Amino acid sequence: MTAPRIGVIGGGQLARMMQPAAVNLGIHLRVLAQSPTDSAAQVIPDTVIGAHDDLEALKAFAAECDIVTFDHEHVPTEYLAELQAMGVQVRPGPHALQFAQDKLEMRKKLVEARIPCPEWAQLVTQDDLDAFTAKVGYPFVLKTARGGYDGKGVWVVDNRDEALRVMDQIVSSNTRILAEELVPFTRELAAQVARSPQGQCVAYPVVQSVQTNGICHEVISPAPDLSDERATAAQEIALKIAAALDVTGMLAVELFDTGDRIVVNELAMRPHNSGHWSMDGAITSQFENHLRAVADWPLGSPAATAPLAIMVNLLGGDLGDLHSAFRHVMARDPGIKVHLYGKSVKPGRKIGHVNLIGSNIDDLKERAWHATNYLTGAIDE
Amino acid sequence: MTAPRIGVIGGGQLARMMQPAAVNLGIHLRVLAQSPTDSAAQVIPDTVIGAHDDLEALKAFAAECDIVTFDHEHVPTEYLAELQAMGVQVRPGPHALQFAQDKLEMRKKLVEARIPCPEWAQLVTQDDLDAFTAKVGYPFVLKTARGGYDGKGVWVVDNRDEALRVMDQIVSSNTRILAEELVPFTRELAAQVARSPQGQCVAYPVVQSVQTNGICHEVISPAPDLSDERATAAQEIALKIAAALDVTGMLAVELFDTGDRIVVNELAMRPHNSGHWSMDGAITSQFENHLRAVADWPLGSPAATAPLAIMVNLLGGDLGDLHSAFRHVMARDPGIKVHLYGKSVKPGRKIGHVNLIGSNIDDLKERAWHATNYLTGAIDE
Repeated sequence: MTAPRIGVIGGGQLARMMQPAAVNLGIHLRVLAQSPTDSAAQVIPDTVIGAHDDLEALKAFAAECDIVTFDHEHVPTEYLAELQAMGVQVRPGPHALQFAQDKLEMRKKLVEARIPCPEWAQLVTQDDLDAFTAKVGYPFVLKTARGGYDGKGVWVVDNRDEALRVMDQIVSSNTRILAEELVPFTRELAAQVARSPQGQCVAYPVVQSVQTNGICHEVISPAPDLSDERATAAQEIALKIAAALDVTGMLAVELFDTGDRIVVNELAMRPHNSGHWSMDGAITSQFENHLRAVADWPLGSPAATAPLAIMVNLLGGDLGDLHSAFRHVMARDPGIKVHLYGKSVKPGRKIGHVNLIGSNIDDLKERAWHATNYLTGAIDE
Repeated sequence: MTAPRIGVIGGGQLARMMQPAAVNLGIHLRVLAQSPTDSAAQVIPDTVIGAHDDLEALKAFAAECDIVTFDHEHVPTEYLAELQAMGVQVRPGPHALQFAQDKLEMRKKLVEARIPCPEWAQLVTQDDLDAFTAKVGYPFVLKTARGGYDGKGVWVVDNRDEALRVMDQIVSSNTRILAEELVPFTRELAAQVARSPQGQCVAYPVVQSVQTNGICHEVISPAPDLSDERATAAQEIALKIAAALDVTGMLAVELFDTGDRIVVNELAMRPHNSGHWSMDGAITSQFENHLRAVADWPLGSPAATAPLAIMVNLLGGDLGDLHSAFRHVMARDPGIKVHLYGKSVKPGRKIGHVNLIGSNIDDLKERAWHATNYLTGAIDE
């Protein structure tokens, strides 16, 4: 028996959380990390130190992998094409990944695939701006086509002067400008699917996510008060995108729910924060299904093991004595699942999350938020 | 935040399966393995190569651990006392572990603690043999006090000549002789508890196990048709033993169920094959609770996440093309959880297991055994 060697580019917490799944499945996981102290480098023996934008480092790493996949979407696609030319399987491939890297290309492709999107336009000139705002008015949203994440590279602009200033800023960072209507959403949803090279797909329950300053903070699975019909519609959007873009591995589709419309906000072609609940609440976690999908193995059941699951992120706060807090939280609630990423604490940085399963939403919220607030130092009793 | 450094002595699959739990909890796991190809050495970056019966190797390893625990029970207790003298926490400690290493000492201690045991005696002379068989008759069971595992070091003897031959054999292997009645059991049960140094305990559901040639093969949790009263009695036995022997970490108590009596067969002071179902079927797996217990952290809920769970071991068979079999099994049953230990295949060797959760026992058995038989080459469709 020879286990496939799967190499992950990027040593963050997503690569780290693939390791438990790889250990169980007998998959040999490798990681290309920037530093030996990276989250994933701490737990994966076969760690190679190198930069994700250094072609020679990528080639040397890929030469000892059967399959290459990702912790993030920042590897230049032209480099990935070179890895493919070496005979390495790159999953998702650069032809798919380009749509996760460039939001303007993503919008064009989604329109082509008849996926519901907010109103959007590429802005180059002041005339473009005026034509777009004539349609959607102010405020609206400006985004860098490339390089944004966790709320960075996104601005809500209230007037023409502000819009022009942000447009200048985006242009000077050498990327194109995407304008989008400010969707009057009542909540955000996320639909996750896994897709294998053979085209097999599984769809996870549609979740509700709450962002704080553009960073995912709370996820509830399944999304409360979402009719079966609308949940299925959201899953169908994700399945259609996965097929249209030829995604392999996990795809997360972040959605705006306005009450009557569901439109696509962003895409991520990797395990995603909105699926961390699956580690403790689904038959097959998103990390296991990502590995199974990129290995072209049959996918595992995405079914939930409890009526409800909640995930709350630990965003770095006053965590001076985390282990003492850890003990308190575990003693108070034997059902709480604390996940830590081995990262140093910085304000607003994702350093871990808590998961909880159950059947009463109020109970789950109270317990998960108490644990989170205690661990991050926001409360002390 | 400083995560405790927990060192595991022994690089087998039990140490390997602690790694996913350690990754999630942010615990730094180390392992003392005999070879870099050991099951656990493949997945734990901080692996030290050395023998578990080499005092200098143990001391060098322990010097960089806050806590030392075990993959197996074979470390000489006098060596462990030396590690304790260095200031390292050894959990379980040698004062507890001696009862898992020596079955004669275990029987004495259990009798002292008023735990139900089979009839037993230490045999030294032929008179001892005759006195014991006058009580229990033939056949009965002879065991080496030390060194037996997975059915090795255990003989069922039918007559006096055979008994004398086995007694000679045991004496010549430099260990003492334990004689036990052949318990007319209708099935075997196992009760697992986790216990922390502070004395906190949690009890897992009592399971039913089926052995093949002395090796655990199938486990069903909870044990079918076991009344609440008898299940509680079995849990109480395990809790009482854990306290009486001052066990820290996981304790597995293997039990014989005769229909009206439940008596103790063997003890294991570590995660145990009878608890592998908990990896996919409990809020907190036995591996996570072992780490939490030896770290003296509050324990996690041992509650099941489904009405029933089944585990079947993969015992090395004709596994020429395991990955092709893997694909077939995963494609046939998206709910099956296959665990592989990264070990080479030898007949009868435990190379992995499958887990499944659900609510119908016949359905679970059919699916788990089909997967197992297909993976081990016993069937090909």
